[in-house]
Amino acid sequence: MFSKNFPKLTQLIPRQGASLNGKLSTTSAQAAQLKGLENEPNEPIIKTNIPGPKSKELISEIGNIQQAGTVVFFTDYEKSTGNYIADADGNHLLDIYMQIASLPLGYNHPDIQKVIANPKNHNIFVNRPALGTNPPMYLFEKLSNIINSVAPKGLNMIQTMACGSCANENAYKAIFIRYNTLMRGGKELTQEDLNECVMNKGPGCPDLSILSFKGGFHGRTLGALATTHSKAIHKLDVPTLDWPIAPFPRYKYPLEENTEYNKKQDEECLKEIEQIIDHFNTVVKKPVAGIVVEPIQSEGGDHHGSPYFFQQLQKLGKKHNSMLLIDEVQTGLGATGKLWAHEHFNLPESPDLMTFAKKMQIGGYFYSDKFKTQPYRIFNTWLGDPARILFLEETLNVIKRDNLIQLNKEVGDYLLANLRNLCKTYPGLIANARGLGTFCAFDGATAKIRDDLILKLKNMGIQCGASGDVAFRIRPSLIFTKNHTDIFVDRLDKALKSF
Amino acid sequence: MFSKNFPKLTQLIPRQGASLNGKLSTTSAQAAQLKGLENEPNEPIIKTNIPGPKSKELISEIGNIQQAGTVVFFTDYEKSTGNYIADADGNHLLDIYMQIASLPLGYNHPDIQKVIANPKNHNIFVNRPALGTNPPMYLFEKLSNIINSVAPKGLNMIQTMACGSCANENAYKAIFIRYNTLMRGGKELTQEDLNECVMNKGPGCPDLSILSFKGGFHGRTLGALATTHSKAIHKLDVPTLDWPIAPFPRYKYPLEENTEYNKKQDEECLKEIEQIIDHFNTVVKKPVAGIVVEPIQSEGGDHHGSPYFFQQLQKLGKKHNSMLLIDEVQTGLGATGKLWAHEHFNLPESPDLMTFAKKMQIGGYFYSDKFKTQPYRIFNTWLGDPARILFLEETLNVIKRDNLIQLNKEVGDYLLANLRNLCKTYPGLIANARGLGTFCAFDGATAKIRDDLILKLKNMGIQCGASGDVAFRIRPSLIFTKNHTDIFVDRLDKALKSF
Repeated sequence: MFSKNFPKLTQLIPRQGASLNGKLSTTSAQAAQLKGLENEPNEPIIKTNIPGPKSKELISEIGNIQQAGTVVFFTDYEKSTGNYIADADGNHLLDIYMQIASLPLGYNHPDIQKVIANPKNHNIFVNRPALGTNPPMYLFEKLSNIINSVAPKGLNMIQTMACGSCANENAYKAIFIRYNTLMRGGKELTQEDLNECVMNKGPGCPDLSILSFKGGFHGRTLGALATTHSKAIHKLDVPTLDWPIAPFPRYKYPLEENTEYNKKQDEECLKEIEQIIDHFNTVVKKPVAGIVVEPIQSEGGDHHGSPYFFQQLQKLGKKHNSMLLIDEVQTGLGATGKLWAHEHFNLPESPDLMTFAKKMQIGGYFYSDKFKTQPYRIFNTWLGDPARILFLEETLNVIKRDNLIQLNKEVGDYLLANLRNLCKTYPGLIANARGLGTFCAFDGATAKIRDDLILKLKNMGIQCGASGDVAFRIRPSLIFTKNHTDIFVDRLDKALKSF
Repeated sequence: MFSKNFPKLTQLIPRQGASLNGKLSTTSAQAAQLKGLENEPNEPIIKTNIPGPKSKELISEIGNIQQAGTVVFFTDYEKSTGNYIADADGNHLLDIYMQIASLPLGYNHPDIQKVIANPKNHNIFVNRPALGTNPPMYLFEKLSNIINSVAPKGLNMIQTMACGSCANENAYKAIFIRYNTLMRGGKELTQEDLNECVMNKGPGCPDLSILSFKGGFHGRTLGALATTHSKAIHKLDVPTLDWPIAPFPRYKYPLEENTEYNKKQDEECLKEIEQIIDHFNTVVKKPVAGIVVEPIQSEGGDHHGSPYFFQQLQKLGKKHNSMLLIDEVQTGLGATGKLWAHEHFNLPESPDLMTFAKKMQIGGYFYSDKFKTQPYRIFNTWLGDPARILFLEETLNVIKRDNLIQLNKEVGDYLLANLRNLCKTYPGLIANARGLGTFCAFDGATAKIRDDLILKLKNMGIQCGASGDVAFRIRPSLIFTKNHTDIFVDRLDKALKSF
């Protein structure tokens, strides 16, 4: 069986020491010949303001048929290549935001192009199947490859979904189903119970909850949105579920100069989390079936938690029968210099479930046997898209072959060292450089400074983004190298100088 | 502009009288040469039991990494063609279920194959974009074509999403946002209100509701699931929102022999709906911001509502400021012999919103200007998949060119006449033949008889499905012809005879 010979990504990554001084190890020196960079320009090419006149015209037109206020610019995907995104006006920007952290190998990667150029694959695109009832013959092999290659230890099963919100919604369901089944203790529901449950009532429709964190983001459908607490604009005017919300650490940087303060943050948060769980379990009587948490609060402001915090959180969950769901939608697939960001935490065991989407190109979650349900309980028509599974499989091949997670770690260390330097150079403008791998951020002194900086950089040929109130979020592809870092850092320096 | 010349599908469909007597009009006579049927076998080819040994082996294997209990058989998508689905064991079944009503033009349609064979389209597949921030240059043209071609009158805007559940979830949000904004009457929220809303509290997080119907199905994510009331298995153990649930008519068939009873059903349901809305608005204080309804309850048992019922429902909604969302996820894109099933109801005006997915190959909803929100309120990373938009565009071209909605109406009338005859022939086994277009159903005398019938037919080469407690659900492609109907009806007759 092919899947048995498919090695774990982590096994392939040599654990070399990274160099912070600009001299990269052999692995990264090879980055010059890295596949996917062949057609990149040497640097950004800027011919107009961003957005340019053609983008503006298209923004005005599409405003007649859609919400257009979120459009940065219209993109020429044919001309985009590697780490460079091309727009409708002939500009080529170095993209350190990559479709909201979702395109793993940059634009028009030659190996990904081969997937679609191969006529043998075309029937997979043409006949969109209901994966749950009529899976394609190759599905077991493809999913096995994915599991064998990237599933966290012990989470040997996979449920695919169409997007990140659906991934979290269905992982919550898996948690509720398991929790309520355990609580029933084998007692069968009566036909009357079942009839009531269809009408949103009775013991089949329990008042359980998921604990989430202030500043967290887990999606925008109603269940996911009830656990999202990053910005008012996401939530305004939408009814919700009254579930517990706990504090997440807010550290001071640099970490090494603030160990005592940050440790206190951990302890205070953990104490409050336990109080909240206890209160919901015993007073509110809305038991906390699960805890959902991002390894890094990626949309709410790039807030990090320490390995200690996450180890204790897992312990707390176990103590109170709250299952731990780690949401790696944004942090996953090598973005933090490890396959999954939660590997940085050295947890005694894997989380109970782990959701993914974005760089994985499909949504879904990994789980263990204990979350296996009866048929049709976790289900929908499409359950994702096998065309995207094909692209994912090839993406994993490329990540392994080209050692991209190790590259990400090394480039990330180099990037962070540079960001720290800039924070020292411009202390009135930016601070708190932080990150794992290239998954980096720093804060603007104010929201206005952060927003102005993004705008300046855009017009200097850097496509970048924000997170939370004041953070500048860096989310490049996995083929982002030291050379690209230099271009970005150089322009960031110039932009800061211009304030 | 291309989009301006893109005619409405409805304008292209000649309003010919359909023939119930088996003689089809010219349009359908041409069905013999219909594109997409070129490679079909003359009839089903059955070599093994369904599922066969190879499918069984794969089901057993995939059971180690996924829930496998929903798998009917493993499918050979390369060998599937037209209305025939091929399985892993070399069987070819006539498919009247078509991936849970979701594949519009059958398997490996030559025009859909051309979309993927064209290298110019490949960059659209390779670079999955964040459609909200960096839309491809062609997006306005493609979405305009879709709107101009199939949007209900007055709903001149479109929001794409990844699937049907996300379509409904976001349409609910659009309703809540509009309702609460109107209720605020222009009053600005304070910063404190906004902060509270992030924590699931206060006036920015209102206690509003969506009214749904007993037997309705609108998806399985938590918000959508709160409005789904078809089967206990979908809902068991998952917490929900306490929103109003109203009765939906349950008619007796044949309709023409039960007009008085059915009219009373309409009146009683409408009376109760109004009482429920009033109760939730004034007593429960959870105002009914919207009403979500399927034109035909497609998963909960193929329950139909009369044009009168829907006309009055729209009136009721208007009276109580509850916006009407028609969910055409399963009924849409020609499946009922009209472009959208709600066109059968001659509503005085379009619904406020209409959701789609399945045959449209992407999820989403059509809406009017009044539901346009500020940026980032209805949003997510991918907002669907432009690759599927390409396939949709070509699907619409084929539907127009080959007059497939008219074909569906005529074949549907022929199919229904045959089902009615069989109900007369086997009164102890089946009853209540009903349908619009080929979107037909009949009831088994018991759930066991219905389930046995599906199993018998599967082994006679007919892929079919169930809905609700006892209904047999027929959901063929849009290239399903009189010839296919004859094959199905012949085997259905034989299967019934064998009881």
